[in-house]
Amino acid sequence: MSEDSGSVAKTGCSMVKRYLELLSLGEALTLLTKSFAAPGHMENVPVVQSVGRIVAEPVFAKYSVPAVNISAMDGIAVRSRDTIGAGDQNPITLTHFVRVNTGNIVPPEFDAVIMIEDVWEVGDHFRIRRSAIPWQHVRHAGEDIKENKLVLAKGHLIRAFDIGALVTYGITSIDVLAVRVGIIPTGSELVPPGVWPKPGQVVESNTVMAQVYLSQMGAHCTRYPIAPDEPDIIRETMRKAVEENDLVLISAGSSAGTRDFSESVIRSLGELVFHGVAVKPGKPVMLGNVKGKPVLGLPGYPLAAQTVLREFAAPLLESWGFAPAPHYPVTVRLAQPLVSDPGFDEFVPIFVGRIGTTLVGTPHGKGAFAQMATVKANGYTHIPAPVEGYEAGFELTVMLTTDPGSIERTLILTGSIDPALEDLAGLAHDEGLFIHATNPGNTPGILALGGSCCHAAPLVLPADSMLASYQPLLQYKKSGDLVFIHIATVELGIASRDGLGLKDLTHTRFINTRKETPSRTVLDALITAEGIDPLKVNGYLQEVHGPQAVVVAIRNGFADAGMCTSGIASASGLEFVPVAHEDYELALWREMLADQRIKTLLTLIRSPAYRTHLEKIGGYDTAKTGVIRDLSPELVLTTCPLPQD
Amino acid sequence: MSEDSGSVAKTGCSMVKRYLELLSLGEALTLLTKSFAAPGHMENVPVVQSVGRIVAEPVFAKYSVPAVNISAMDGIAVRSRDTIGAGDQNPITLTHFVRVNTGNIVPPEFDAVIMIEDVWEVGDHFRIRRSAIPWQHVRHAGEDIKENKLVLAKGHLIRAFDIGALVTYGITSIDVLAVRVGIIPTGSELVPPGVWPKPGQVVESNTVMAQVYLSQMGAHCTRYPIAPDEPDIIRETMRKAVEENDLVLISAGSSAGTRDFSESVIRSLGELVFHGVAVKPGKPVMLGNVKGKPVLGLPGYPLAAQTVLREFAAPLLESWGFAPAPHYPVTVRLAQPLVSDPGFDEFVPIFVGRIGTTLVGTPHGKGAFAQMATVKANGYTHIPAPVEGYEAGFELTVMLTTDPGSIERTLILTGSIDPALEDLAGLAHDEGLFIHATNPGNTPGILALGGSCCHAAPLVLPADSMLASYQPLLQYKKSGDLVFIHIATVELGIASRDGLGLKDLTHTRFINTRKETPSRTVLDALITAEGIDPLKVNGYLQEVHGPQAVVVAIRNGFADAGMCTSGIASASGLEFVPVAHEDYELALWREMLADQRIKTLLTLIRSPAYRTHLEKIGGYDTAKTGVIRDLSPELVLTTCPLPQD
Repeated sequence: MSEDSGSVAKTGCSMVKRYLELLSLGEALTLLTKSFAAPGHMENVPVVQSVGRIVAEPVFAKYSVPAVNISAMDGIAVRSRDTIGAGDQNPITLTHFVRVNTGNIVPPEFDAVIMIEDVWEVGDHFRIRRSAIPWQHVRHAGEDIKENKLVLAKGHLIRAFDIGALVTYGITSIDVLAVRVGIIPTGSELVPPGVWPKPGQVVESNTVMAQVYLSQMGAHCTRYPIAPDEPDIIRETMRKAVEENDLVLISAGSSAGTRDFSESVIRSLGELVFHGVAVKPGKPVMLGNVKGKPVLGLPGYPLAAQTVLREFAAPLLESWGFAPAPHYPVTVRLAQPLVSDPGFDEFVPIFVGRIGTTLVGTPHGKGAFAQMATVKANGYTHIPAPVEGYEAGFELTVMLTTDPGSIERTLILTGSIDPALEDLAGLAHDEGLFIHATNPGNTPGILALGGSCCHAAPLVLPADSMLASYQPLLQYKKSGDLVFIHIATVELGIASRDGLGLKDLTHTRFINTRKETPSRTVLDALITAEGIDPLKVNGYLQEVHGPQAVVVAIRNGFADAGMCTSGIASASGLEFVPVAHEDYELALWREMLADQRIKTLLTLIRSPAYRTHLEKIGGYDTAKTGVIRDLSPELVLTTCPLPQD
Repeated sequence: MSEDSGSVAKTGCSMVKRYLELLSLGEALTLLTKSFAAPGHMENVPVVQSVGRIVAEPVFAKYSVPAVNISAMDGIAVRSRDTIGAGDQNPITLTHFVRVNTGNIVPPEFDAVIMIEDVWEVGDHFRIRRSAIPWQHVRHAGEDIKENKLVLAKGHLIRAFDIGALVTYGITSIDVLAVRVGIIPTGSELVPPGVWPKPGQVVESNTVMAQVYLSQMGAHCTRYPIAPDEPDIIRETMRKAVEENDLVLISAGSSAGTRDFSESVIRSLGELVFHGVAVKPGKPVMLGNVKGKPVLGLPGYPLAAQTVLREFAAPLLESWGFAPAPHYPVTVRLAQPLVSDPGFDEFVPIFVGRIGTTLVGTPHGKGAFAQMATVKANGYTHIPAPVEGYEAGFELTVMLTTDPGSIERTLILTGSIDPALEDLAGLAHDEGLFIHATNPGNTPGILALGGSCCHAAPLVLPADSMLASYQPLLQYKKSGDLVFIHIATVELGIASRDGLGLKDLTHTRFINTRKETPSRTVLDALITAEGIDPLKVNGYLQEVHGPQAVVVAIRNGFADAGMCTSGIASASGLEFVPVAHEDYELALWREMLADQRIKTLLTLIRSPAYRTHLEKIGGYDTAKTGVIRDLSPELVLTTCPLPQD
């Protein structure tokens, strides 16, 4: 199930062949949507279960509504001719009338209703001071709908508020489009959902996702048992699925591995229409025609499977009359450059946020395996095949996958996400605030802040005495307008399986962090102070991205010790020997302090509940939590001269 | 359940009181959302059933994904140090490696993967011509997510593509927000859904709509049996509903009728928070606090009930952490003036269509009873309280209630909708085309065409010999660019219960159509030709809107005879005596003939299936069906001089 491989390896390694044809997305979609006629099934469902379904046969009103003339007001039904000439100087007392509430029948002898507040009771009669126009406040028979008139046309997507009309017009069940989709998971490495996978095993999740996604379009999905990589079993399952369904999806086995049998099974049962489309992720997508029915091969990588579901399976159902999942396009300013492979239509998860008056879009990784990218994103963009990419700041169209309203309630934090911040999202949600936190590290956070691509940047900073050595922040040109909200003081130390300390670093396998990280700044200061030669530290030159990567390296056995915070160490179950402190701060532009979302966040950070929470995790000093301080040029100048530009 | 009444009548008619307080929408929403704390219930649901629900407790990954280092490619896992120095001039043969497919474990001794297409098989070994960078094509343990890391924060709205990640990370069930809503229908005039209402009865549909609408937000709704207008029964039902639910909706009984008991029942069980809000439709909305729980009174008119569901009930659930139904704002150009009652926040159904490059919004009636207005609309607009209305052409924001994509596939027809056109929607849908047809009559259709507010105007036109007398079209300044697609020639005649003809009109109750209608033009020509004095026609001066209103008047007994087409007469079950012919034509601007949607429509109109269909309905001559003709100034001038402007 290789995503990026451009070749196919067959049973062994000697034979290497390229994809025979790599269709364009457009060509592939034409083949897909023009080769298979709509199955044209329908089913009758009760109206209360019809929301989201597509009307298969026109729906007509069973009777007229209202059935007869009725009153549109509370008042009295009168004959308009009896009221002619009434005025302030000439009140008329009506003796022939009937009291009506809204919705009551206006008997045929009456042709107008006078509102109750425009009449005066006189004994058993009513006095009026204004004449009634014929048919005033009368709702005519059939005014809303007439018997046998069209309520819903074929193809209408039924919404919740349509249900009221349907029920009112006497309709209790409705013929809606139906389609059966069979989904076959393949792969000997798969275990069913809920089974704890052993190393090298994967939970079979793509067909669950396909089932849920296509069910939302109104499809009846059947997931078949996992077929191991045995051509005979796959063939038998596909034969059965084609017989029982209108569309068959076969998950994985469509790529370049030694055990990818989907293509050969399709060829043995029918015809291969295409294998390989210039789309990323999703290149190994495959289409077969078995007994006149489409068999669509989903790649194994989750994001590739998503792309094929959304860009192939959904359009096929759409060509059969089903409605697509709603796509809401917005124009956003790109926060980072976005490169694309020319010749490929690419689909990239994007997070859209509102900074000031601008919608800003941040790409969320292009790795086809990173399911968290789609989870964290609230939209995606389509980069057409001829495009090589976009510069930061480019305006592009993003399709939202969430309610646009939620964007306005979301605070974007980009930088170093310590466990201290992770649980703030729960508290924030109780206040109607969403937090979108990404963890690329300090420097990207500072850059995002500079480019107005986040509301605030959580930064792990060396304690004040070492701040002078911490370059990424101080080199920042506009730092004069920055303010910091102190979240907590964090213990920094050595993580290891065996409780190693600073002095052990010369006789163990150390894993370092990159130069721009604060833990590196602190480490360098500490070993200098201890008189340790950096090159005596075994692994000093082996750098990883940041403290999160340090604990992964230690837990996976690639190193024995490294620098990180106590929170990260304890979350990973590693031993921790504290050696210094860092300040965990939220950096933001001064004007952002007026933003309601930041105000809410500040209130939360200063709340006793949050302090208690931090103390419970442990390793945090909350003495200064919630304090706002300037990083004015003057303050910085006292510790380190700002570079001139 | 009066909508427009500003007063309340109590048991009898002598006492008339105004609503004591009419809150603004903003004040009412503040009272609603600040008075009731979130009930904070949650329930555990299987992930496959969690789409659309809100995460109640943060969801963490059960294990790291991948659990160990795995291959990102099909190829061989190697030690990068073994590959140092490889090049075209210096191929290296590797003896220590393991063959891996994508997703296979990369054993700890290896730190890189070389793609299968970059290796050459040499006996049992592989030769390479390029060195491998450490960790190339290796997916690190925990690269997608690390054990115990946050997958979904509290408050996240679960989407179909989130399901894949959840299943992959070992999550099989999830705590989501839960809320119980009790819905009480009241009203002695109500019959349950599915029961054929007698005159004056109404099918109880608002609570079904409420149930469906709030269920979509994740609420568990209980509909109680219909409570007749008996205070004791309503009180007992409300007591039970409050006990069993977090929120109670009481439908109808909130207004000014003699039998509206909701307010008094709330007062007897708890406290009335407000009754009457300056919102239209929905003014009689009511809020009570019974044992600390909100009781929301829905007005009886369907559109008022919809407004209260969307603008009150949904925001209350939203304040409790639930997600609103998605609202997609678009900016549209208003096709018609839209008046609004200053002081009231008004909500008006709008149909949004695309004409050329412009989104055009057409208001769909403001009557609170007209459920077809919401069915036909694909959005709504909110007119703030201070605004008195908008001119045609004003740009305003519309919230869409359908997929924005469907707008591009919709053809807008405004004018006279004959049964001949109604069923075209079904044929059109098979071609992926939606038809939005509104039936305001010829003149509004011509105006809509002139204002570029529709793609084409279906018009019932007098036959050529009388076209000269038909003013609305000929007065049209830009007629030089108009073309007509002939749909059918239609029989025009006298509709009645008893088969009356032209000569009977002097001794029966006739109902006329307005001067600008083509049937009036034809009638006047015919009776002039017959030598009948118009004023001898009993009812000649009694005008209704058009032929549809004519048949309603006859069926309801207000008249005995009137002019209409054979299709309209037969659809209404009336006798029909033909007296003339009309041309049913689709008028459009010449450049619109290039529009793909019009092309599709033209193909359908010219199809044998459509002709067969018209012949089956009967009363249509299809000899010229599908013929396009000009209405050039020259053509018009041959019959009637164009007025100068």
